[in-house]
Amino acid sequence: MADWQEITGGITAPRGYRAAGITAGLKPSGLPDLALILSDVEAIAAGVFTTSQVKAACVDYCRQRLQAKHSARAILCNAGQANAATGSQGWLDALESAMALAQALNIPSESVLLASTGVIGQRIPMDKLKAGIPQLIAALSETGSDAAAKSIITTDLVPKSIALETIIGDRPVRIGGIAKGSGMIHPNMATMLAFVTCDAAVSPALWQQMLSRAADRSFNSITVDGDTSTNDSLIALANGQSRTPAIMEMGHEAEKLEAMLTAVCQHLAKAIARDGEGATCLIEVQVTGAHDELSARQIAKTIAGSSLVKSAIFGRDPNWGRIAAAAGRAGVPFEQDNLQIKLGDFLLLENGQPLPFDRAAASAYLKQTAADSSLPQDFVATNNSNDLSVDRSNIKAQRVDNPVIIALSVGNGHGSSKAWGCDLSYDYVKINAEYTT
Amino acid sequence: MADWQEITGGITAPRGYRAAGITAGLKPSGLPDLALILSDVEAIAAGVFTTSQVKAACVDYCRQRLQAKHSARAILCNAGQANAATGSQGWLDALESAMALAQALNIPSESVLLASTGVIGQRIPMDKLKAGIPQLIAALSETGSDAAAKSIITTDLVPKSIALETIIGDRPVRIGGIAKGSGMIHPNMATMLAFVTCDAAVSPALWQQMLSRAADRSFNSITVDGDTSTNDSLIALANGQSRTPAIMEMGHEAEKLEAMLTAVCQHLAKAIARDGEGATCLIEVQVTGAHDELSARQIAKTIAGSSLVKSAIFGRDPNWGRIAAAAGRAGVPFEQDNLQIKLGDFLLLENGQPLPFDRAAASAYLKQTAADSSLPQDFVATNNSNDLSVDRSNIKAQRVDNPVIIALSVGNGHGSSKAWGCDLSYDYVKINAEYTT
Repeated sequence: MADWQEITGGITAPRGYRAAGITAGLKPSGLPDLALILSDVEAIAAGVFTTSQVKAACVDYCRQRLQAKHSARAILCNAGQANAATGSQGWLDALESAMALAQALNIPSESVLLASTGVIGQRIPMDKLKAGIPQLIAALSETGSDAAAKSIITTDLVPKSIALETIIGDRPVRIGGIAKGSGMIHPNMATMLAFVTCDAAVSPALWQQMLSRAADRSFNSITVDGDTSTNDSLIALANGQSRTPAIMEMGHEAEKLEAMLTAVCQHLAKAIARDGEGATCLIEVQVTGAHDELSARQIAKTIAGSSLVKSAIFGRDPNWGRIAAAAGRAGVPFEQDNLQIKLGDFLLLENGQPLPFDRAAASAYLKQTAADSSLPQDFVATNNSNDLSVDRSNIKAQRVDNPVIIALSVGNGHGSSKAWGCDLSYDYVKINAEYTT
Repeated sequence: MADWQEITGGITAPRGYRAAGITAGLKPSGLPDLALILSDVEAIAAGVFTTSQVKAACVDYCRQRLQAKHSARAILCNAGQANAATGSQGWLDALESAMALAQALNIPSESVLLASTGVIGQRIPMDKLKAGIPQLIAALSETGSDAAAKSIITTDLVPKSIALETIIGDRPVRIGGIAKGSGMIHPNMATMLAFVTCDAAVSPALWQQMLSRAADRSFNSITVDGDTSTNDSLIALANGQSRTPAIMEMGHEAEKLEAMLTAVCQHLAKAIARDGEGATCLIEVQVTGAHDELSARQIAKTIAGSSLVKSAIFGRDPNWGRIAAAAGRAGVPFEQDNLQIKLGDFLLLENGQPLPFDRAAASAYLKQTAADSSLPQDFVATNNSNDLSVDRSNIKAQRVDNPVIIALSVGNGHGSSKAWGCDLSYDYVKINAEYTT
């Protein structure tokens, strides 16, 4: 049972944080494009960044900052330009952004962290960014989470936000998070970004360890199209304003905090997968019986990332052969005679042998999970017509609590893990092919 | 310069081989579905098989056979049922198939190799297979390559075949090959299969080494959707009927033979990528300047397999940011300041910095490579209509000599490699989603 409750307020739910989001004119669309998160006091800061060899200037910048000093007060995020593959000029732009914000806030520039998302190879229009900073600071508010969440998105259909609260030492401790991401890259639009705020007091080393583990169990367990971006960044602040005792080592309270941090990250990660370009449903792959968690995750991610599995789910086809084939090529040894595959409640394969099952009922299960999505109810029945496009423009919200569940057991080991993905639709291709050159 | 010439005859071009393909009634469609390749004498045999943990019975069978004895006379291939995930009964079916053929040919069953392709989880209808064997043997012919090539395909649009000839010791030596594959798996239809015949005399160990290296540079360098099948098999026979001196160790003649073997495998591999489900063009990624060949191949394959790069090429969009991002996430260290990217003759990125280029001309280059494909010439101009389907039914042949060339240099190393893929179209999703359940 979860040891926390969901609350409102996003990243400004924890004590001692303000946030803002404004339109600085960086996006051609005129939508909000500049966000700021500010802690009242210097906060312990941890980060997890893209492993790509081609990295944005802001990623290099944050890595250097966090190596030198494990704390920060502000996170500045621009949307519209990735500032990746922009060479030495991009690096200078990053430094200048941090200095301009620090000066306006009257804080050391070492306390500013940066994130960018947008077109690879494009510089940030520095004049517009600098001109926007006073307005951005003026907009800072203890209810500014939604404005910030809206200002960091690019091709996302919906902003992504969550806040949870638990009790540590008789006092409430809160963690909030916002994220953006929808496919790793749209027409040159890059990136998964997530920012987490927490009001607990934690040691820097412990906070980084917790964040790295939480990232493995959330953002590193989702896949939309397998394309890691140049700008992927997860930054988490912990400012101690809950006035709870400092957590200095692993133990009951640390575990409680890490579990809540993991839940925040998993919610945001699932929201990103659900908002995958062209997706009509969220897919959750559960793997048990592996040698260890890492092996289980590798199998789960391979299935969640398989174009063939994703296409089958889009077609609401209980095609277990593709699931078995994806598991087999994950690079993790297992005995195929031990393989068990379930789709929802339907047992499809046991001891490596196919079982008879109610194919129509299994397909109905797949259709039901899309009941809250953009996919027309009668889509499968009519998809031999020529009109293959699905209008997603009227989507108001995307639920992440009704995923398609694919469950595998691969042996008798104690390793288990989950991964999340989305189906592969005509719209994915449409979104990514129709970039007018 | 290539040291060989292309000749007709496919797998029956080399001396001492006959082949046949018939309709045994295994496929519901009534199309040819049973193929046989027979060497007049026991031939040196080598094989490369799927690395998947979920393997077809024929793969286990061939591995065991080739471990015990490095030679064979016959390859029997059925299309329609993969005989994968069929448990112990599938294993017995494989043994029975080999024994039935051996008895009819009056050869030891140890000299029979097997391959299957089709629906995962389905057994081969053994009565039909056994009933077809006499007809299959009666159809064996020194011009039977095309019949065999047509009998091993499933969702392929075209059969795939090649034969090359070179001179070794003043006498002609020939290698022929046939293959099937179109996406790794269509609605449950699995598999890349390739069969190569050669009339040179080679030591078993050397032949296996040559085949493994050729496979790395061909079949292991293509990707349609990243999904390795349960049945992937490459089997190569060398029967010595060219009457050329036996090649027992590496040297000039061995290198000549291996180069020709590699060319045969590369032709077949490119033909499979070009015939990728829904593909409108072949993509060749060339990587130079890497630390070693393996690193170069890893980068090339990552780019060729990127859904975002593939979607951009389908849209005829010179979107180099996606190419850079895919290179960066390949898991191979390089300095992004050394990165150079070319698309055809267009230099897009040098020393990690974007260059101005003629975007319209680059897009025109991409369109021109599809001139021989199924994509209507005016597709890009009209692709905002609702009719997203592309009719591929009238495709007669698919050229592999006019690929989209993506060339990267990642440093000053001596490692270089190529990989091949295809673009990602609406049709890929359509083919893989529209499986009526």
